[in-house]
Amino acid sequence: MTAEFFADRHIGPGPDDERRMLETVGYASIDELMDAAIPEVIRWHGRLALPEPASEQDTLAELRALAAGNTVAVSMIGLGYHGTHTPAVIRRNVLENPAWYTAYTPYQPEISQGRLEALLNFQTMVSELTGLATANASMLDEGTAAAEAMTLARRASKSASAVYVVDADTLPQTIAVLTGRAEPLGIEVRVVDVDRDELPAEFFGLHLQYPGASGAVRDHAPLVGAAHAVGALVTVAADLLALTLLRPPGEVGVDIAAGTTQRFGVPMGFGGPHAGYLAVRSGLERMLPGRLVGVSRDVSGDPAYRLALQTREQHIRREKATSNICTAQVLLAVMASMYAVYHGPDGLRRIAARTHAMAARLAAGLRAGGVSVAEVTFFDTVTATVPGRAAQVVAAAARQGVNLRLVDVDRVGISCDETTTDAHLAAVWAAFGVPAVDGEVPEALPAGLARTSDFLTHPVFRSHRSETAMLRYLRRLADLDYALDRGMIPLGSCTMKLNATTEMEPVSWAEFAHLHPFAPAEQTAGYREMISQLEGWLAEVTGYDAVSVQPNAGSQGELAGLLAIRAYHRSRGEAHRDVCLIPSSAHGTNAASAVMAGMRVVVVGCDADGNVDLVDLDAKIDKHRDALAAIMVTYPSTHGVYETGIASLCAKVHEAGGQVYVDGANLNALVGFAKPGRFGADVSHLNLHKTFCIPHGGGGPGVGPVAVRAHLAPFLPGDPAGEPVDGRPAISAARYGSAGILPIPWAYLRMMGADGLARATGVAVLAANYVAARLRGHFPVLYAGNKGLVAHECILDLRPLTKATGVSVDDVAKRLIDYGFHAPTMSFPVAGTLMVEPTESEDLAELDRFCDAMIAIRAEIDAVAAGQWPADDNPLVNAPHTAAMVSGDQWPHPYPRSVGGYPAGVDRVAKYWPPVRRVDGGYGDRNLVCSCPSPQAYAD
Amino acid sequence: MTAEFFADRHIGPGPDDERRMLETVGYASIDELMDAAIPEVIRWHGRLALPEPASEQDTLAELRALAAGNTVAVSMIGLGYHGTHTPAVIRRNVLENPAWYTAYTPYQPEISQGRLEALLNFQTMVSELTGLATANASMLDEGTAAAEAMTLARRASKSASAVYVVDADTLPQTIAVLTGRAEPLGIEVRVVDVDRDELPAEFFGLHLQYPGASGAVRDHAPLVGAAHAVGALVTVAADLLALTLLRPPGEVGVDIAAGTTQRFGVPMGFGGPHAGYLAVRSGLERMLPGRLVGVSRDVSGDPAYRLALQTREQHIRREKATSNICTAQVLLAVMASMYAVYHGPDGLRRIAARTHAMAARLAAGLRAGGVSVAEVTFFDTVTATVPGRAAQVVAAAARQGVNLRLVDVDRVGISCDETTTDAHLAAVWAAFGVPAVDGEVPEALPAGLARTSDFLTHPVFRSHRSETAMLRYLRRLADLDYALDRGMIPLGSCTMKLNATTEMEPVSWAEFAHLHPFAPAEQTAGYREMISQLEGWLAEVTGYDAVSVQPNAGSQGELAGLLAIRAYHRSRGEAHRDVCLIPSSAHGTNAASAVMAGMRVVVVGCDADGNVDLVDLDAKIDKHRDALAAIMVTYPSTHGVYETGIASLCAKVHEAGGQVYVDGANLNALVGFAKPGRFGADVSHLNLHKTFCIPHGGGGPGVGPVAVRAHLAPFLPGDPAGEPVDGRPAISAARYGSAGILPIPWAYLRMMGADGLARATGVAVLAANYVAARLRGHFPVLYAGNKGLVAHECILDLRPLTKATGVSVDDVAKRLIDYGFHAPTMSFPVAGTLMVEPTESEDLAELDRFCDAMIAIRAEIDAVAAGQWPADDNPLVNAPHTAAMVSGDQWPHPYPRSVGGYPAGVDRVAKYWPPVRRVDGGYGDRNLVCSCPSPQAYAD
Repeated sequence: MTAEFFADRHIGPGPDDERRMLETVGYASIDELMDAAIPEVIRWHGRLALPEPASEQDTLAELRALAAGNTVAVSMIGLGYHGTHTPAVIRRNVLENPAWYTAYTPYQPEISQGRLEALLNFQTMVSELTGLATANASMLDEGTAAAEAMTLARRASKSASAVYVVDADTLPQTIAVLTGRAEPLGIEVRVVDVDRDELPAEFFGLHLQYPGASGAVRDHAPLVGAAHAVGALVTVAADLLALTLLRPPGEVGVDIAAGTTQRFGVPMGFGGPHAGYLAVRSGLERMLPGRLVGVSRDVSGDPAYRLALQTREQHIRREKATSNICTAQVLLAVMASMYAVYHGPDGLRRIAARTHAMAARLAAGLRAGGVSVAEVTFFDTVTATVPGRAAQVVAAAARQGVNLRLVDVDRVGISCDETTTDAHLAAVWAAFGVPAVDGEVPEALPAGLARTSDFLTHPVFRSHRSETAMLRYLRRLADLDYALDRGMIPLGSCTMKLNATTEMEPVSWAEFAHLHPFAPAEQTAGYREMISQLEGWLAEVTGYDAVSVQPNAGSQGELAGLLAIRAYHRSRGEAHRDVCLIPSSAHGTNAASAVMAGMRVVVVGCDADGNVDLVDLDAKIDKHRDALAAIMVTYPSTHGVYETGIASLCAKVHEAGGQVYVDGANLNALVGFAKPGRFGADVSHLNLHKTFCIPHGGGGPGVGPVAVRAHLAPFLPGDPAGEPVDGRPAISAARYGSAGILPIPWAYLRMMGADGLARATGVAVLAANYVAARLRGHFPVLYAGNKGLVAHECILDLRPLTKATGVSVDDVAKRLIDYGFHAPTMSFPVAGTLMVEPTESEDLAELDRFCDAMIAIRAEIDAVAAGQWPADDNPLVNAPHTAAMVSGDQWPHPYPRSVGGYPAGVDRVAKYWPPVRRVDGGYGDRNLVCSCPSPQAYAD
Repeated sequence: MTAEFFADRHIGPGPDDERRMLETVGYASIDELMDAAIPEVIRWHGRLALPEPASEQDTLAELRALAAGNTVAVSMIGLGYHGTHTPAVIRRNVLENPAWYTAYTPYQPEISQGRLEALLNFQTMVSELTGLATANASMLDEGTAAAEAMTLARRASKSASAVYVVDADTLPQTIAVLTGRAEPLGIEVRVVDVDRDELPAEFFGLHLQYPGASGAVRDHAPLVGAAHAVGALVTVAADLLALTLLRPPGEVGVDIAAGTTQRFGVPMGFGGPHAGYLAVRSGLERMLPGRLVGVSRDVSGDPAYRLALQTREQHIRREKATSNICTAQVLLAVMASMYAVYHGPDGLRRIAARTHAMAARLAAGLRAGGVSVAEVTFFDTVTATVPGRAAQVVAAAARQGVNLRLVDVDRVGISCDETTTDAHLAAVWAAFGVPAVDGEVPEALPAGLARTSDFLTHPVFRSHRSETAMLRYLRRLADLDYALDRGMIPLGSCTMKLNATTEMEPVSWAEFAHLHPFAPAEQTAGYREMISQLEGWLAEVTGYDAVSVQPNAGSQGELAGLLAIRAYHRSRGEAHRDVCLIPSSAHGTNAASAVMAGMRVVVVGCDADGNVDLVDLDAKIDKHRDALAAIMVTYPSTHGVYETGIASLCAKVHEAGGQVYVDGANLNALVGFAKPGRFGADVSHLNLHKTFCIPHGGGGPGVGPVAVRAHLAPFLPGDPAGEPVDGRPAISAARYGSAGILPIPWAYLRMMGADGLARATGVAVLAANYVAARLRGHFPVLYAGNKGLVAHECILDLRPLTKATGVSVDDVAKRLIDYGFHAPTMSFPVAGTLMVEPTESEDLAELDRFCDAMIAIRAEIDAVAAGQWPADDNPLVNAPHTAAMVSGDQWPHPYPRSVGGYPAGVDRVAKYWPPVRRVDGGYGDRNLVCSCPSPQAYAD
């Protein structure tokens, strides 16, 4: 009985397409192609031991059964994770809309103005609520944001001290992450009770929580003064909702604010993903890690957004980087910013006031019933003391469906949020055995700390109050952007494949969306079973022995993997091993991660074919033999080639006592055909947002599990909420990282099965070789491996053409927009080239449309070369062409308008028009504006 | 404690907006405005007795609780409703996508090309699967499609007979609907066992079911010959899935095919909505009722879709109409057509073959176990005979979660579908007490009836096999269209208000989506409770005593209401009352419905102010006093005015023994301020897709409940699946009509509450008066009531301008597209005018944007008048301007390109561009093409 195979839907080319592509590439079958392409030395000939593929319907049914193993309780645990009402219009039109979730990071600003505006709104929201000058476009979570604040403080502080003081009333998981990050960097985290203890004489930074984990709201002004007096910087981890009522950190001279925006409409998701935030005072903006959106202008002088100050970023600074963060949490930042757009300042204040009133009533009731509540002033959280009875109270509440925080044997923490109802308060009082109280009670906000300054004054936060207006705003922004739902995004190394709807739907289910990461284990059995299966399947796919899904981005997976190597060496008494070899072609993040793991980076050269230079490798190993900690390589290489020397490379490093880290970025070329854990690697991180179908979300969320062989398993990330274990630092604020989106890779693996996955790999490699074969005559393909074959991507070399005509990689990338495409990866790993990764999800019609466009562009370059068009005025340098440009009353260009706007092959009926012309990034960097410009700016 | 009020999100203008609008209109408050606008004689001063409004979250929680009262069982009942897998990519990107569901009927073809293409695909699919020349763009359900086929056959037949022969193996609910429709038209439905009984000597039409309700597949060729021999037409109600394997009706000379496309990916929804279909052989296409999409061309000669042959339609033919159908089921037709696009012919055949194989195994197992199965050949359904044990078997299956059809005490019907699994078969066998069987069994399809012809040969059905390709196709089509998610649709009489996400979400829930309309009562308690509450709330809102939600469109509600009046008169021995008075300003559907209800239409004139001419009314009443059955009026009038004479009108008609039908199309101007059931009306239909927020879906689904005073309650629609009750004909094929979308109005009423609803009405009236006030100086406002006020809409008179300049209503409507708007209603109720209904959901910014555009257009008309632009070449007659036009290499027009493409005030960054220029409807009507043109057509 023929069933519907999901793999047939996931994989673009059908049997006919496949046949024609194989003919072009010159192989009889995919098996034959893969036999030729993949070096036998790494080839694995088994069949993955995964469950037989399930249909989409059966997969959803199985996930429903797993979801039923979770219990959705009312969460009053707090600790940075709160119940929140996602406005339905945002849930449906952002979280569940492929126009938002299938978009890539906005590196091509002309086709990303929608999400850039949403991110600018996010930055404006964070900046104005915290009272600080500049906020970035989001961080991975509050814990890692705090860690980035710590290292930023160290860079900016004039203090020579290595001590970082942390308020004891900080979220425990933040302390865990800070501690894990500090140790390899030689930073000493000193936890201090700021109410009682003296500050040390010397320290470079101070971390405060506002309000505290206990709920207490403190006046931090004196501490800020004291810290500044010794040259230290102050970070405040602040709750943005509280800041609608409380004096913001920026108004008392705080240098940095860090935190989460989860409670702005983003479900808890058992720990993530949510958008963390980071904001700094004026003067520190150029030291901000992560992504920063700013306002610039296009060549017509019209305002245009783009990523600002990109030279700060890790992939450019490499081993000089001070942070390894690449991904933001764009989709979640968009949701949080839209929550603020939807509610506006008055609505947010109303939500905060209601939340506070609930907490005040709760506390009054407890006190009236004789329960001691420590906090005099608080926002949404109180800590009640019930000597010896805390566990009993927490259990009693849980029986009524309400989760409280078990602080210790004597104390119970209770947090209110916008979802708190009278019934919840009644349940809490009942659990404490105190009578319910009615009526309003006085505020318990500290009088002197009331917020007096305005915020969210920009019209965008004041003109979308109706659902109709909100819906249209979301549609308008989505329409400005190019995402996978419009066409191919052939970005090399980014694996922009299908994000299937069936994979996405469970993310919205309450049983996955509304769990607190610290919910009692009996309420999360379904999640843990799903995660355990997923980790097992990922281990099977990669050939490793153990996997942790905790790292919530690829960069964090790298760090986790390197820290495991570091801990392993130390466990064997080889703490001196601190050299990390990195090939010159590596992604910059590799080097940055190595630095963060306390290692010294030594670069290994590449040969003319783009492969690791094994001679130089030998030399570097010899030179650093005793100190050798690890090598980090990407496989297939960042050049898109299956290097044959990989097995030998692994052997050499192992022989010298080092560990081999294989960056899993290119795993889409290996699944089912080779297993890094079997061909010599000790550890890898995987990018679930590449190979395993988590959508890029416009620049996050990503998930970067770390996979290790057995000897490194004891050093996988620890539980940030558990007891610290030596050698197991917490990498993220939640044990399972971005658990809320793990149903996506689970569903992908469940539906593809062993054969589907292998076929996907084969078709991805076939597609890359097909593109290489079709384009080779027009653009040289820079590197190839066995038999002239590439792996899953190919590099097109434009340098000779650029030299001859002045037409640059940028021009070609922007011209592709006119043809209806997102550009391939530009100038990585080789400047002046384009790297194309078609993936298995594009069918032949789309591959051909792309190849045809590239060939047409080559003809346009030839026309420039032939002098038909001037080098400074032709369809390439003027690309992309907006509708306003090609329909302008003046047309001063030497080619017809139709050539500009409707190049051959473009969809004339449904053409995508970029909203702005080419963006001038430099202008914006020189005139940095990173929050919403006044509407006047657009009128000018 | 301030809570979030949904009404604040539903209603566009906030307090500031409201103040400014009131200032312009000249009233101090909405109350004052409404006091002035609404005649005291109809004014109701109470507060609606509805539950206090619930928040969006609480509403969803309450609906969850109601949903939990339903049981989702495996349905093997069949009878035209089958389990189906909605492809997730279609569910998310069509059913759950406001770009599709908030669109209006594609009367403005230039901004509706996306859904027109989808509907053309639907027509092509139906036409090719049935083997008939032309299919329309969908019908309301199979029952009403069959009824339309019956009346079409009567019109087309040369037979003088009034007998319509219906195969006894027809779906029982179809027979119920046919019978109900036939009686008032003087048609005699004669049910005949075509296997045993002779056909009558004379009859005008023959209805056959293929396969039969029992599952039997008959060769209809001999019956077709016999029918044709006496001049009768033959309708076959065919299952489209079966037609992928079986010889289609068109190949044996059948004249008409009717049926449902539900099993093509549309959930059962407890009865609806689904897309019915109707297809006819060549020669009958101009007699097809309903909407028909055809291919034409735009003024540039490019292919363009539009509604074809509109002169056939009821709203134009009025009392000469032969059908009252206006709405199609566009959203569901789009889903069904996309199911075919997604699966393609091979996929559909595979699904059919698998379904058949399941049924064949099922039958083989039953037979092997000694159970008698009557059908020798069948597709998906068999009837098993278990003397005296049928109820017991059905109950045993239900205990295992499987619903079977209880045919009678001895027989059980069992249908397979694409969701049937081995486990379901096992449950059925167990219920019958027979052992399970394994392995394949021979086909039971009739050898001579195998389909040999190809179908779905167009590339659109063969090139979207991957989810990526499908997703992009859906996005591409959605992007061609203008829906409420882009901007205002100020269509007079259509009430294009917000369709809130919270109202929409429950429609996708399994507990509402997957119930069979004939599921056992104990499985549908939640649905029935919800419907009962909804009917009660609607009664409260309208002042009537009883409501039935059965009619699945406004037109069907009209028919149901008139049939109730008819039955009432007959019950009182006054069967001779058959005159229905209808004002000349009425919507054409009113007259058509009256004809269908067996009434004679007598038109009553209107006076110069657009009100019913009470003098003429008196005359008509006098003339027809003894025969007077009813008057049908719309209130507020179709002129958008609160007529003061309404109470007197009602009294006059009652005095003469007639009943008063108030068309509820304009109820949005009354809710909370007046109740038709209290000011003199006896019956109304409501348009839940206008006042109560069911989205228009691009032209359906609609829901048209009928509401009556107590004396008419005994004559509300009967249960099509129950025993026939005299005077209670079935109006739809399912007892609760389109039950699946009733959560939408339920949620709307639940969230708005009495005060929210009244405020919505007030703001809707304020908005219309605001538009009238701002535009009055530029375009005369044609009618007004008390104090110069309009109700919820206003008519702008363009006739003087047209006379002076030649610029027509059409030109203004198309020019509004350039400004980023959907046109108001054109030339209804008065030719040469535009009727504007802004609704309460548009905020002041959008109202002003519209008024500004209209004022700018007036200036453009003045420029034509002043001779600045020629009458035949100006931005108005050339509108709408496409991107291709304004960026063309040639620009022969006397105004700048920028005036054409970017008129003042338009969103330059995110401008909506229509995909085609003005469509030439006449060309397409002269050269009728109603299925997908070959791709070659576009290349020409």
